[in-house]
Amino acid sequence: MRENDLLHWLMHSTRPDAAVPVPIGDDMAAVAISPQAAGLALLKIDQALDGVHFNLSTCGPAAAGRKAVNRCLSDCAAMATAPAAIMVSVALPADMPLAAAQTLLTACRNAAAEFNCPLVGGDTAIWQHPLVITVSALGFATQSPVLRCGAQLADAIVVSGKLGGSILGRHLTFTPRIKLASLLQTIAPVHSMMDLSDGLAADLPRLAAASGLGAVVDEARLPVHPDATQLAARDGQSPTHHALCDGEDYELLFTLSQHDAARLPTQLADVPLTIIGEMTSEPTLRLRAPDGTLQPWPAGGFEHQGDAH
Amino acid sequence: MRENDLLHWLMHSTRPDAAVPVPIGDDMAAVAISPQAAGLALLKIDQALDGVHFNLSTCGPAAAGRKAVNRCLSDCAAMATAPAAIMVSVALPADMPLAAAQTLLTACRNAAAEFNCPLVGGDTAIWQHPLVITVSALGFATQSPVLRCGAQLADAIVVSGKLGGSILGRHLTFTPRIKLASLLQTIAPVHSMMDLSDGLAADLPRLAAASGLGAVVDEARLPVHPDATQLAARDGQSPTHHALCDGEDYELLFTLSQHDAARLPTQLADVPLTIIGEMTSEPTLRLRAPDGTLQPWPAGGFEHQGDAH
Repeated sequence: MRENDLLHWLMHSTRPDAAVPVPIGDDMAAVAISPQAAGLALLKIDQALDGVHFNLSTCGPAAAGRKAVNRCLSDCAAMATAPAAIMVSVALPADMPLAAAQTLLTACRNAAAEFNCPLVGGDTAIWQHPLVITVSALGFATQSPVLRCGAQLADAIVVSGKLGGSILGRHLTFTPRIKLASLLQTIAPVHSMMDLSDGLAADLPRLAAASGLGAVVDEARLPVHPDATQLAARDGQSPTHHALCDGEDYELLFTLSQHDAARLPTQLADVPLTIIGEMTSEPTLRLRAPDGTLQPWPAGGFEHQGDAH
Repeated sequence: MRENDLLHWLMHSTRPDAAVPVPIGDDMAAVAISPQAAGLALLKIDQALDGVHFNLSTCGPAAAGRKAVNRCLSDCAAMATAPAAIMVSVALPADMPLAAAQTLLTACRNAAAEFNCPLVGGDTAIWQHPLVITVSALGFATQSPVLRCGAQLADAIVVSGKLGGSILGRHLTFTPRIKLASLLQTIAPVHSMMDLSDGLAADLPRLAAASGLGAVVDEARLPVHPDATQLAARDGQSPTHHALCDGEDYELLFTLSQHDAARLPTQLADVPLTIIGEMTSEPTLRLRAPDGTLQPWPAGGFEHQGDAH
């Protein structure tokens, strides 16, 4: 396999798209700026490494590509924006067959196509080391993007989906909550939002700090995923611990007024929505135990440390 | 070093910029769409790998970061666009000190700042393998971008700078020809353009094929860099061979009408401009030898094959 073989294949297997007047193959791609764009381009770059974010030998190239793209698209969801284009750069191990590299790039393209998002750029290189997939996403904000810093005092804190235990498989197969984020916008003003990538225990403090507030979360209200329960049965930690501290849920964490929260459906775009707590003026985070006592916030949350999944 | 330490440092050492209303630190960055934008966003992704595109142990982290960014900015020059934002993703070897990673990211930021381009996104990961730097660039086209496919029959073919032997050092220290491309636009309509990354022998056929034309290049007119001559003295190849076949010149290759070419200055933005040949109707590439005979086009050009520089 040579770098250019793969790029040629990618160019010639990409369908023409009116929104991409200059596709892969020139020095840069050109993407039409959405007529609805309110003056802002949104940008993200994110990498997925073999042995850190996925294990190529067990998950295969399609799952690796899909995860790499969806990690990036999850950030589009977190900004309540639709992705307008993605680009994918791959450093391929020299012993990877061309067909596997094509499977990988096809999976990347298909993952984005689920959100009508074209793959407009690719860079390929070959080396003697593990696979690196780097994905960059562009979106156009049609209104003010929903940031982490917008939470207001007494806001309800909501999470989508169920949390914990994603390492059992969901970290590869999750769906970026782009449709959910778009629907939410039509129901109520969302004050602040982010996606849960490092676990609620690590991510909620970031949202709270950005907003200059604290938070109290009701332990009993946490939507615990069955995977968290399964993992807990194995390792002796509590299911709640897994729901709080496991990474890679790729669910949405957001806040809105209590009034609007009360009107939220329990499910939207087939995804459960759960009110788990409220923003507080005291800038600390605490967990309200089932007996009503306030407990310290669990340390940690998830950080990739070269641990292969 | 932990991933988040580096990201925090990057966030807090980035100056506020009115063109970046949402800087590094949220799920995506927001960049103001230029009021001059003519409806198109231009996008590029490009990676630089230790042992392939640079050798970290000999060039150090600053030179590696600078090269990674400038490779991407060279594509902005090739589209005759100014970069509006870059993002940098780094996979850092676990034994790299935090200070070295900071030096690397500072060099990336400074390289872009030379063109008033902000660094708006960063992703960091740590692993047990060599350094990977992936750079993504966004530009806004203020007029139709200059593509590879626009060359016209009988166009003059022009290159900027001098070619060959960049492996002696220029592949790390080159300046993306952004200012030159911008000035060119004010002088004459450029029909087609690209940057020379794989060597004229490989790149001119791409421009010709995209335009459905052939080309004849005058060997005697090739602007041979002193580095090409120096390399030729070592390896027995001709200086011309190095000027044609060496990669990573990162100069501009462009075509325009003979009439406009005749009015080009010999130097623009302190960079020499040399007319080297013309586009032909016969879709082949040939080299005109000093004695006037037409010779076959040299095979090859440069492709990274995991050879460390």
